[in-house]
Amino acid sequence: MTIRTIVWGENIHERVNEAVARIYPDGMHETIARALREDNTISAQTATLQEPEHGLSEARLAQCDVLLWWGHKDHGAVADAIVERVAKRVWEGMGLIVLHSGHFSKIFKRLMGSPCALSWREAGERERLWAVNPGHPIAAGLGPYFELENEEMYGEPFSVPEPLETVFISWFQGGEVFRSGATWRRGAGNIFYFRPGHETYPTYHDATVAKVLRNAVRWANNAKGAWPSVHDAPNVPVEKAIEKIEERGPRLHQHGQAGFR
Amino acid sequence: MTIRTIVWGENIHERVNEAVARIYPDGMHETIARALREDNTISAQTATLQEPEHGLSEARLAQCDVLLWWGHKDHGAVADAIVERVAKRVWEGMGLIVLHSGHFSKIFKRLMGSPCALSWREAGERERLWAVNPGHPIAAGLGPYFELENEEMYGEPFSVPEPLETVFISWFQGGEVFRSGATWRRGAGNIFYFRPGHETYPTYHDATVAKVLRNAVRWANNAKGAWPSVHDAPNVPVEKAIEKIEERGPRLHQHGQAGFR
Amino acid sequence: MTIRTIVWGENIHERVNEAVARIYPDGMHETIARALREDNTISAQTATLQEPEHGLSEARLAQCDVLLWWGHKDHGAVADAIVERVAKRVWEGMGLIVLHSGHFSKIFKRLMGSPCALSWREAGERERLWAVNPGHPIAAGLGPYFELENEEMYGEPFSVPEPLETVFISWFQGGEVFRSGATWRRGAGNIFYFRPGHETYPTYHDATVAKVLRNAVRWANNAKGAWPSVHDAPNVPVEKAIEKIEERGPRLHQHGQAGFR
Amino acid sequence: MTIRTIVWGENIHERVNEAVARIYPDGMHETIARALREDNTISAQTATLQEPEHGLSEARLAQCDVLLWWGHKDHGAVADAIVERVAKRVWEGMGLIVLHSGHFSKIFKRLMGSPCALSWREAGERERLWAVNPGHPIAAGLGPYFELENEEMYGEPFSVPEPLETVFISWFQGGEVFRSGATWRRGAGNIFYFRPGHETYPTYHDATVAKVLRNAVRWANNAKGAWPSVHDAPNVPVEKAIEKIEERGPRLHQHGQAGFR
Repeated sequence: MTIRTIVWGENIHERVNEAVARIYPDGMHETIARALREDNTISAQTATLQEPEHGLSEARLAQCDVLLWWGHKDHGAVADAIVERVAKRVWEGMGLIVLHSGHFSKIFKRLMGSPCALSWREAGERERLWAVNPGHPIAAGLGPYFELENEEMYGEPFSVPEPLETVFISWFQGGEVFRSGATWRRGAGNIFYFRPGHETYPTYHDATVAKVLRNAVRWANNAKGAWPSVHDAPNVPVEKAIEKIEERGPRLHQHGQAGFR
Repeated sequence: MTIRTIVWGENIHERVNEAVARIYPDGMHETIARALREDNTISAQTATLQEPEHGLSEARLAQCDVLLWWGHKDHGAVADAIVERVAKRVWEGMGLIVLHSGHFSKIFKRLMGSPCALSWREAGERERLWAVNPGHPIAAGLGPYFELENEEMYGEPFSVPEPLETVFISWFQGGEVFRSGATWRRGAGNIFYFRPGHETYPTYHDATVAKVLRNAVRWANNAKGAWPSVHDAPNVPVEKAIEKIEERGPRLHQHGQAGFR
Repeated sequence: MTIRTIVWGENIHERVNEAVARIYPDGMHETIARALREDNTISAQTATLQEPEHGLSEARLAQCDVLLWWGHKDHGAVADAIVERVAKRVWEGMGLIVLHSGHFSKIFKRLMGSPCALSWREAGERERLWAVNPGHPIAAGLGPYFELENEEMYGEPFSVPEPLETVFISWFQGGEVFRSGATWRRGAGNIFYFRPGHETYPTYHDATVAKVLRNAVRWANNAKGAWPSVHDAPNVPVEKAIEKIEERGPRLHQHGQAGFR
Repeated sequence: MTIRTIVWGENIHERVNEAVARIYPDGMHETIARALREDNTISAQTATLQEPEHGLSEARLAQCDVLLWWGHKDHGAVADAIVERVAKRVWEGMGLIVLHSGHFSKIFKRLMGSPCALSWREAGERERLWAVNPGHPIAAGLGPYFELENEEMYGEPFSVPEPLETVFISWFQGGEVFRSGATWRRGAGNIFYFRPGHETYPTYHDATVAKVLRNAVRWANNAKGAWPSVHDAPNVPVEKAIEKIEERGPRLHQHGQAGFR
């Protein structure tokens, strides 16, 4: 069964910066989508900041199994209502793959509950990603490490919650390290953060990066494990208790009244 | 060295509901604060929703090592700016203990990044809390379990992120179970959720509950491990790289320019 | 692609205890294998304590994707060499599902590194398993809970390492709770412990239990993520360092010498 | 209250290798013990492989709050019975700090349940340890990183279970990374692995390393959270069930009979 993905791109630097436009003439989102389509069990559409509802209508998200997110220059322009809509879908079971500068996107910070800060340097230095969890599906088919000759540096500490599992750790030429691939679950939604992808370098044209993205889509897909009621706080009336009990003591709520939120 | 705590109470039902007022004539926050003061290494002040800035000024929070939070009827009345202020202090290293109906407080949902929903029943039934991690400092000095003869039921699934460690699991007379004590870390801040404490029952007068709260305060206190720079995203200029490197390729940022947020 | 499983059964009580023989005339392992075969993407063979090498030769294990383990009366009769052989395969990527009294099997204790103890009562009481992580693939297709009218009680504390994820928690009629479904990873091997399955009750004839087992097999299967070199401790000679370095200072090892173990 | 530690040293290379003897004339264990004693709330004794029972009698271990372990050349010479004795004490609540080549010690592999392998190179290269969890008590008082100008390289993948928390990650001059500080809990025992400490370099004379070791001792100490019954598997007879139940169905065990192990 096809895994349906949407690649969301901020789509600004590709249009206003010449260096970026040369590398990604059709937009970064389109290059990423092409990388996913090399696996014929994955379908990939795109969405951008500039579209109505940023291309993420209720209807489209309802048909999306895994969302990929690349943003950098204008995180603040993403409407809060859309962020909440995406978060809701993640909790219900949609996978989410957050790329590079998306560490400061509203949606990632919303789901992590922490600052998601890091140090950085834009010097085109060498990055080497080590698979520290080679048995993890996201590292399938890779060697012990892979290199990107020119990348932006991101340095620890990365202020995210302790990951469920750490998959990649990067070595940088200038002396830093970074947890470059890490997973979390929120509700039924699998979340993967993948570090590489600075817009002035051809990272998303790299074959190994493309393979990691496809692995990540397959891992994040949770069609079977959806949890639509993740938001619900149902009252269980005394007379419907599974084990018979009798009501005792004072109470706040009238019968049939909803709880406070 | 004294651990400085603030017990935050919503302070509504104690004033408007007779049953609650009888049990907590000075307010729930004051009863909880008294329980903490039984340990003379803990100092306990209180703060309530009705005070200016809800009693949580920058100055007070800067002097607070561990904050306890009880709210239920009017989570929405807590100002967003205060929620962000508390979250910031947690990331920097202030401990946070969230009590009972505080599972739906803005601050808990903010830090968890998930719905924090559950099922519930107000029938005064028996709750039995099992220490599933008896070696954890929060369970120190307890037996294998303790009971509360009358409590509100909270039932799984509890839509929170997988805890760092689960300390207590509750058995309910009506047939449900619940992860009643669980820990997370966000930034440098230790977070503990403790389930019991429905306002129509005398839970915070219970000696074992009081002991758990004191244990939790000592565990959550992280005076040594503060992380004031948890929010920062510093640029490391090429010429200050620890290992000497040379700049290569195009770049987006001018020298000395801050990153995008 | 078919997932190849082996169901390992101790196969003692089925032969010496009349009550057990009536419920499992072909052996518990055979009943479990049949439950797995209802999914035609799963193939299921069996192996028992009494066979040469307990039915777990190197050749068979090399062809096994997921091993299921049920033992109770004579854990000590399993040869240590076979336990090490199974552990090695788990680290390399074979899934392992440990059932009920298998909590005290040599292989489970070997992989957990902790006592794996618990309290117990054999009274045919009611067990209710709550899916606390409804979005987890192992809980796919289940309701919020399922019941087994007659089961042995296992009570907390269960002295295992904090699980990667907790999937089920049980409520027992006599007042206890238990983490009845929990996951760990060791090397590339996915491990699931599933509590129900006392031999004097017809648990493995239950349709929901059978569904959980099939879900667990699919989850534990890690064909793509194998890690055959998980045991290796290779020396990287100075002249083969990825980044050029020069040897400095004294050393213990001669060039080409293996490390100490 | 004083934290009582024992520093266990293999004590071979200090005696047979001139380079090591020059750096650690009194043995590595003694240098480490001195580093701990700089905190006057810590008492530090030593024990070595060559002593009767390797210096780890039941009586001494019973009085030990935190054990530190350095071994390399002859892990196999440690008696299995002593390894089990130490593991038992860890489960009951004794802290354990495993140093450098101790990754292949019997006790560490026993508690991890995995191979604990890694790649390595002995070239005296530069190691830089980044505090990726600056709010963790083990990183208290450190800057963002610290350096050891000459160390042995250890490279990922390190085949240990996913840590409870990762505290340090190392950058190596030759291009590798390593999770150099990581925590686990087994039973009530806090476990910390700390990577540096190759015997041909003066690592344990380094002031920052010494501070980390003292931090780790304070963190691992769990005097309050001991769990002496972690090994027990008590039967709870029907007539002593907390909630009244009646026995139903067949059973294996006679009343009062112990369970199988």
